[in-house]
Amino acid sequence: MNPVAGTTWQTSADGARLTVNGRAYPRPGRPVVVVCIDGSEDAYHERAIADGLMPFTEGMLARGGDLRGACTMPSFTNPNNLSIATGVPPAVHGICGNYFYDTEAGEEVMMNAPELLRAPTLFAAFSQTGARVAVITAKDKLRRLLGSGLAEGGICFSAEKADQVTLAENGIEKVLESTGFELPSVYSAELSELVMAAGCEVLERDRPDLMYLSLTDYIQHKHAPGSPVANRFYAMLDRWFERIDALGAVLVVTADHGMNAKSDADGEARVVFLSDWFDAETGAGASRVILPITDPYTVHHGALGSYATVHLPGGADREALRAKLAGVGGVDIVLTREEACERFELPGDRIGDLVVIAERNTVLGTTAARHDISGFEEPLRSHGGLTEQRVPVLVNRPVELPAGHRLRNFDAYWIGCHAAAGEPLPA
Amino acid sequence: MNPVAGTTWQTSADGARLTVNGRAYPRPGRPVVVVCIDGSEDAYHERAIADGLMPFTEGMLARGGDLRGACTMPSFTNPNNLSIATGVPPAVHGICGNYFYDTEAGEEVMMNAPELLRAPTLFAAFSQTGARVAVITAKDKLRRLLGSGLAEGGICFSAEKADQVTLAENGIEKVLESTGFELPSVYSAELSELVMAAGCEVLERDRPDLMYLSLTDYIQHKHAPGSPVANRFYAMLDRWFERIDALGAVLVVTADHGMNAKSDADGEARVVFLSDWFDAETGAGASRVILPITDPYTVHHGALGSYATVHLPGGADREALRAKLAGVGGVDIVLTREEACERFELPGDRIGDLVVIAERNTVLGTTAARHDISGFEEPLRSHGGLTEQRVPVLVNRPVELPAGHRLRNFDAYWIGCHAAAGEPLPA
Ligand SMILES: [Zn+2]
Ligand SMILES: [Zn+2]
Repeated sequence: MNPVAGTTWQTSADGARLTVNGRAYPRPGRPVVVVCIDGSEDAYHERAIADGLMPFTEGMLARGGDLRGACTMPSFTNPNNLSIATGVPPAVHGICGNYFYDTEAGEEVMMNAPELLRAPTLFAAFSQTGARVAVITAKDKLRRLLGSGLAEGGICFSAEKADQVTLAENGIEKVLESTGFELPSVYSAELSELVMAAGCEVLERDRPDLMYLSLTDYIQHKHAPGSPVANRFYAMLDRWFERIDALGAVLVVTADHGMNAKSDADGEARVVFLSDWFDAETGAGASRVILPITDPYTVHHGALGSYATVHLPGGADREALRAKLAGVGGVDIVLTREEACERFELPGDRIGDLVVIAERNTVLGTTAARHDISGFEEPLRSHGGLTEQRVPVLVNRPVELPAGHRLRNFDAYWIGCHAAAGEPLPA
Repeated sequence: MNPVAGTTWQTSADGARLTVNGRAYPRPGRPVVVVCIDGSEDAYHERAIADGLMPFTEGMLARGGDLRGACTMPSFTNPNNLSIATGVPPAVHGICGNYFYDTEAGEEVMMNAPELLRAPTLFAAFSQTGARVAVITAKDKLRRLLGSGLAEGGICFSAEKADQVTLAENGIEKVLESTGFELPSVYSAELSELVMAAGCEVLERDRPDLMYLSLTDYIQHKHAPGSPVANRFYAMLDRWFERIDALGAVLVVTADHGMNAKSDADGEARVVFLSDWFDAETGAGASRVILPITDPYTVHHGALGSYATVHLPGGADREALRAKLAGVGGVDIVLTREEACERFELPGDRIGDLVVIAERNTVLGTTAARHDISGFEEPLRSHGGLTEQRVPVLVNRPVELPAGHRLRNFDAYWIGCHAAAGEPLPA
């Protein structure tokens, strides 16, 4: 089944509109470029601006939109990238982490296959109605999901595999040659810079209607806002933002989630080991703790984030467990599946009986034996909780939000398309 | 023994002069910054300028000095860095490669120990008379030689070990912190960029009288002039040159040697295996072939360059061997020790009975078995011969050479100090 079959532009007196996942997007009169800076707690750009390192962005925020919005929960990379791409929360698109526990099959399933996506992306919908679309990610893990349903001719590739792009597979070729990069390490700032450089090349050459540039949080996991390495990274981004603006595009800069230190004053990681706790409460191995931050690239966070979901054994006293766990030091809140689905717009069939969220400086693990926290070179920085939900929404055009609108990072294309059509945001 | 004991500034009617290794340097009235771009065949910056990627350098060459000079032979890194640092050829300073064969001890000796340096560097001489000096190299192998004799307070460190610098050892601390770099790979363009960034930091903060910034030829060994990666590297350099100029320094940009493809039309390396040839002529193992390009970092050239020197067994017919080898395809010239010393100003006790130089697109090896040329990802590019002797000498001030002066890269500080003192070059 083609997920966007039947999507067409509706033309009325006030212009053409495409409705995707229930939201109407005006036809943009110029390219709309959304940059998702992975893990971009707002203090990063604020500190870099204060230190005089983002002169373009400083001016852009004075002239345009300098907003803050909420990311979707859990404050992880995949759920939020897919929310930005679809314009809707995980309850609709289905991607609520890097993997989930399939209770029917009794197995843990990686959530990187397009089949698991339950809603069309804006990229698929726009490209299938003739618009030009380009999606560039830092890591390859996101590329398959974000490229799902893209019409032929659409551009979609990752910087991580920029040496392997082909016209047939990715809609583009010779990315390294045209940008003058050697293939960067997947653990480098340069991987993100290649995304920006390639994006500007494509923008200048093809002028796509929609472009999405999604970076990696390698720097943010290791370096705090205002630190020299972080500042240098944002100074680099500033030059590319200036270029995108100079090319006449509407630019919306947001983040998939924030980032916080997850350690005590001595730099020791603060971890609540949930499997150890549930083993003591419900019997060894009876409860299954899922940490949806886990992915094949775990070097910088050791699979430790501030969000977990737990499948309980039959007959467990959920309310009693919830109340007791909520009292454990470092735990912020514990919700039942139903509460979590309502509050966070999550897909109920892909989370457990309980959802656990840690406090600002604490992460959740399974057992002490399964997380090697001694190997961290820097104090742990991570995300996943409510304390990493606030993200910047920066626009190179003035933005007038409708009264009472709760801004989300997944409003990025809705804001961008209206700005690029010269239309106010509808109430 | 202090190699610069007794060196003092001689003041006369026309200003103060320091004589080092027989050459007189006027006291510079502003910082003199020499940048040695390792392996910078002049086509690199010429192509990058033609492609519009070095706008500052383009203007600088229109206003200043756009010259070409000769590097010292062999056209390798260490001999030329030490020539630039001392202002004299290897016959005087003694460093004629990365290692030599000590015939008395009967062993091959690495030439990276300061004891092997036979002349004081300008850095030692200037710093010991109270001038401020800063030397920053990409790789650590050069740091010990270039820092030899530096007075306390002088700055000398390598980007390769920028994470280990201390005030006591290197005259500087927190290099990564102040520049916002993470420690780059020794095989990266970023290693050179860190040298430039740290140099500009030091220049702005300390305003040293002499500064030396020596890069790595990682890019040049892999990428031809005008190729995207090379162009991007020179575009990066252009931004730092502009900064050095804006800080009011005299800037002299030169190279330790050029760089050429060393392969046939199919990209196969063209190698003359000299040990195999001499084994057939003088008996197995009787002659000893020294390839002074060999160093601990051989990834990008496989220890293959276009220069070799050969120690013959007693009783060998040197003239006959020289004549026969000169006729081998790919060999450019074969000189006796005496001829090589005279023509190339080499130290006779640190070269063999014969000096062999390959043609433009050929390198010299020992035996086929000892060089794995199948592992090269790109066609081999290397140096060492007469065809890599021509190097750029680019100055941000007009330069009027004395009539008949044969320009060498090791004139860099002589030119720079005169320009910084506002004096013409002496006839
Ligand atoms: Zn992320
Ligand atoms: Zn070199």
